[in-house]
Amino acid sequence: MLPDLSLRISKIQAAMRQNSLDAMLVASNANIFYLSGTFFRGYIWVPAEGKPVFFVIRPNNIPEGENIFHIRKPEQIPNLLTEHAIPLPEVFGLELDSLTYSTVERLKKLFPEARLGNASPALSKARLTKTPLELQMMREDGAHQVAAYRRIQHCYRTDMTDLEFQIEIERMLRLEGSLGTLRVAGNLMEINMGNVISGDNADYPSPYDFSMGGKGMSPAMPGGADGTTMRMGTTVMVDMNGCFNGYQTDLTRVWQLGDIPELAVKAHECSRHILRTLEKMAVPGVSCSELYEEAVRIAREEGLEEYFMGHRQKAAFIGHGVGIELNEAPVVTPRSKTLLEENMTIALEPKFVIPHVGAVGVENTYIVTPAGLENITPFPEQLVSLI
Amino acid sequence: MLPDLSLRISKIQAAMRQNSLDAMLVASNANIFYLSGTFFRGYIWVPAEGKPVFFVIRPNNIPEGENIFHIRKPEQIPNLLTEHAIPLPEVFGLELDSLTYSTVERLKKLFPEARLGNASPALSKARLTKTPLELQMMREDGAHQVAAYRRIQHCYRTDMTDLEFQIEIERMLRLEGSLGTLRVAGNLMEINMGNVISGDNADYPSPYDFSMGGKGMSPAMPGGADGTTMRMGTTVMVDMNGCFNGYQTDLTRVWQLGDIPELAVKAHECSRHILRTLEKMAVPGVSCSELYEEAVRIAREEGLEEYFMGHRQKAAFIGHGVGIELNEAPVVTPRSKTLLEENMTIALEPKFVIPHVGAVGVENTYIVTPAGLENITPFPEQLVSLI
Repeated sequence: MLPDLSLRISKIQAAMRQNSLDAMLVASNANIFYLSGTFFRGYIWVPAEGKPVFFVIRPNNIPEGENIFHIRKPEQIPNLLTEHAIPLPEVFGLELDSLTYSTVERLKKLFPEARLGNASPALSKARLTKTPLELQMMREDGAHQVAAYRRIQHCYRTDMTDLEFQIEIERMLRLEGSLGTLRVAGNLMEINMGNVISGDNADYPSPYDFSMGGKGMSPAMPGGADGTTMRMGTTVMVDMNGCFNGYQTDLTRVWQLGDIPELAVKAHECSRHILRTLEKMAVPGVSCSELYEEAVRIAREEGLEEYFMGHRQKAAFIGHGVGIELNEAPVVTPRSKTLLEENMTIALEPKFVIPHVGAVGVENTYIVTPAGLENITPFPEQLVSLI
Repeated sequence: MLPDLSLRISKIQAAMRQNSLDAMLVASNANIFYLSGTFFRGYIWVPAEGKPVFFVIRPNNIPEGENIFHIRKPEQIPNLLTEHAIPLPEVFGLELDSLTYSTVERLKKLFPEARLGNASPALSKARLTKTPLELQMMREDGAHQVAAYRRIQHCYRTDMTDLEFQIEIERMLRLEGSLGTLRVAGNLMEINMGNVISGDNADYPSPYDFSMGGKGMSPAMPGGADGTTMRMGTTVMVDMNGCFNGYQTDLTRVWQLGDIPELAVKAHECSRHILRTLEKMAVPGVSCSELYEEAVRIAREEGLEEYFMGHRQKAAFIGHGVGIELNEAPVVTPRSKTLLEENMTIALEPKFVIPHVGAVGVENTYIVTPAGLENITPFPEQLVSLI
């Protein structure tokens, strides 16, 4: 049992009352993990008041208990609830933003008398701020990330391709303890452990919802490294993550190969200047759109707007929530009215693409505190040459 | 444009007529790739008669054309169809088995007069048998897999952990050209490139829908290697895939460490005997359940039923379709009435878990032909010692 389960449940229940849900049946992988600290195949019943109930299909070695039942199929759930004097809901929620339509159609038949509501906003609201245990998990993940990033320069060999460099970094992340798979929400990211973007490939537009592009190795998954040799006078951006314990931190650093044009150096320093500014400004109560506007303002002031967040194609955000999933709420966009709250965890990634040179900029993952942002991925940010 | 696009479209349109769909709007990553040969963010309109229309949100470097439009959001689609004299549907399909409920709710508002149908069965039916180009892609993927498997024994070092062995195999697969990410359908698999299962960890029940279990490295993703040192007298099963070109083949081989008990050797030979039998038996017209029953019959006849497809926890299948996704239709289960057709591609994986020894058995990926199964992952199947 999770030591902070009751805290997580009370956060969800507060959000459920705002959404007038009597109960929800949680079924997505990320939320099963959020509410159990493990992944099992099955469902978690969360009533608006009282304790959750766990319904496990697999694995068969989770012991049954007071609130834990083994089932073969979800259709057994209503009878089990009734047998245990748990009231059936009038309005019950399912994760409409992450379950498939067919899954929802099947599960809503469990309570034919009930009205269907959306459980996703309440779960997203609860997960928006992290519990002390979650913050500890994220700090641990950040420490692993930093330990791995220290070794990145030793992965480089002369005349390597971007892909070969990425493969050595992947191996090193795995040896550091990366689980090798990042949970992401939605279908607009397909990723193993992240991307390495070298030279002009940074300017290649990609279909994915990442901050940077890249042609990729195959039209089947067009993003990231394209297999070209890393050349003198260019940069290489490493945006690789580990998911060391079920939580994630997002960390980007850039290395240069020999001398690079002054414009790229200036843009990199501009990214650091943006981060220093946002780190102080981002206190509880500030809106995400204010952070976005300030970042754009600084980039514009330094005459770098045309390179900011992409050049041939631009990303529409400069940061995002991160935790169990790589892309959580909030998203830092021009229109996001979400106000920062203490213990939110966000990655900020003001980046630039300089044509014929490559991508520059820095990304850190932060905890929102009353004094501003606490960086949980501290690692030197200066441009250093790999050669 | 895909050279065999018209063939793929005509297969889908035949299935659409059976399902009484006037049109479908395709939006899932796997089906976008199936119908375009690339991945883009956007939608593909497939009418029951006539040509498809491509609506691209990202990337911005796909040129517009006769049937290709750039859009910012799906709400622009109905007007674009009308402007180009494309009739609006009375019954229109969305992929209800793979899109989220919220996505379907949004997209169905595009055609408020139309009745919603499920596009997933027609797309699944079309993809059940592969086109000549798809078969070529799968043969290429199989050749890469085999080339990588040849080098697996060179990845082994004395006193390695199962995880260290897996990491070296992952690196080698990536250097061979693996894209590093396997597309899977549904939420019951979380995987990077597959699993390495050593010794008694094979008997650890996992929540995932894989043929074998394993404790994994973290309760966040409980499956596969658990980080223990590989020991003499045990086996190690390598079930790693590459996705080298957007298509996948599934290949499992087992190595032993020194001598292993006779029971494990016998079970491994039984797996090969099952495969030889099914390879002849699996001709067009045979049902998947017949294959399953024959495999169980052979295992039972040899007194190995209690170890077949798991020991403490059993998998409910002995094989599955494979292609763009690792887990496609059909599934080879006791209840699957699907009849084999020429040019289906299926992976068969009769495996055994021998307590205290490990997993044994063989998995190959096959093309269904009138003469039986053609193995597109040919690689020696005998148990060989790594030490």
